[in-house]
Amino acid sequence: MGERKKTTIILFSGDYDKAMAAYIIGNGAAAYEHDVTIFHTFWGLNTLRKNHNVPLKKNMLEKMFANMMPNQADKLGLSKMNFGGLGRRLLKKVIKKHNALELPQLIELAQQQGVQLVACTMTMDLLGIKKEELMEPLQFAGVSAYLGEAEEGNINLFI
Amino acid sequence: MGERKKTTIILFSGDYDKAMAAYIIGNGAAAYEHDVTIFHTFWGLNTLRKNHNVPLKKNMLEKMFANMMPNQADKLGLSKMNFGGLGRRLLKKVIKKHNALELPQLIELAQQQGVQLVACTMTMDLLGIKKEELMEPLQFAGVSAYLGEAEEGNINLFI
Amino acid sequence: MGERKKTTIILFSGDYDKAMAAYIIGNGAAAYEHDVTIFHTFWGLNTLRKNHNVPLKKNMLEKMFANMMPNQADKLGLSKMNFGGLGRRLLKKVIKKHNALELPQLIELAQQQGVQLVACTMTMDLLGIKKEELMEPLQFAGVSAYLGEAEEGNINLFI
Repeated sequence: MGERKKTTIILFSGDYDKAMAAYIIGNGAAAYEHDVTIFHTFWGLNTLRKNHNVPLKKNMLEKMFANMMPNQADKLGLSKMNFGGLGRRLLKKVIKKHNALELPQLIELAQQQGVQLVACTMTMDLLGIKKEELMEPLQFAGVSAYLGEAEEGNINLFI
Repeated sequence: MGERKKTTIILFSGDYDKAMAAYIIGNGAAAYEHDVTIFHTFWGLNTLRKNHNVPLKKNMLEKMFANMMPNQADKLGLSKMNFGGLGRRLLKKVIKKHNALELPQLIELAQQQGVQLVACTMTMDLLGIKKEELMEPLQFAGVSAYLGEAEEGNINLFI
Repeated sequence: MGERKKTTIILFSGDYDKAMAAYIIGNGAAAYEHDVTIFHTFWGLNTLRKNHNVPLKKNMLEKMFANMMPNQADKLGLSKMNFGGLGRRLLKKVIKKHNALELPQLIELAQQQGVQLVACTMTMDLLGIKKEELMEPLQFAGVSAYLGEAEEGNINLFI
């Protein structure tokens, strides 16, 4: 009795604003005593990259995507009106003004609240992203782990 | 007994076609006797803006996003093949030809059917959107109100 | 007892990477013994187009969208870093290198696994897409059919 509710979010998008939405919902659900999992796949993996370059051996193909993508949450663009990063900087300015949390802080809060952060291993391979480049603690899993959680989920979203 | 089913939709996107999809699903679910709530956040708030400019005192930061965004549902762009508004005009033409509903009419229908339209107060602050600029009736709420609805939802979508 | 679980996915997007995500989740859920339905609407319909042009009588309006859109799954662009098709070609290269499945193969697998593929009739009309242009087997339905499935769904996603 009193079983905990569950929220799962697939973060596919690599946009600053969409990642914010994912983490705001995730943090809210955790505060509501839900078990929360955020699965990062495709461009959403960039949210988890450490904010410094990790020297790694990569082949040419692996380098191509990885080097073209933003290498930290704080450098993601907006899904709308990004204007080459100007929109994100403007958004960050208003976030500060309202004492709201920026994306890196939202991620930190999620970690503190025990939100499970998962990186999709299949798309890590495709985009040439290595474990060493991603923040910790982090779980590594595939679609079947996602399905195992989501089929019991009260709230399942794809962002 | 005979408890009503529930559908919640987060409309994050500010694209005409995605807003159409949200309202078509929302209206369909209302016709199916679901309790339906559409939460408008980030660019989705533009769907709710009145189609005339409301004179308001805003500071510079507040003006920046608000003035760059389309100020009514009817002016949103398409997520694909918008070509500077041409795509939307073409879509509106075929909608008329098929006697289907344009976005403003879909919103009106939702209001008539008792779909709860909610504006996310946190992103209103961030994007500098004031209550006076948004259509009525409308509720104002945050992520916890969303979670309260969605955790009981049969269908929860993020659009 | 032992009632089967259900997954429904609305594929709204016409991006190669998002369609891949939809089919990977759908195939995974089918392997997990879920009843799976993928509803293709708006740009997601392009995923289902046959990879050759079908000669059809269309009026001017119908021709406009249909001719501007990619006419097969294999020609869809990426949602990020497409660079005029270069990104997709790069992604396909890494998919092959990792012996993963490309989009057309993911669709074939879904058909073999009994995933129900549905095309949204309303948006077929709007975008000027005819039944003859779409692959088989395929069901044709509208929003009410979607709702009938989704309200019983364990996992419902909008992609």
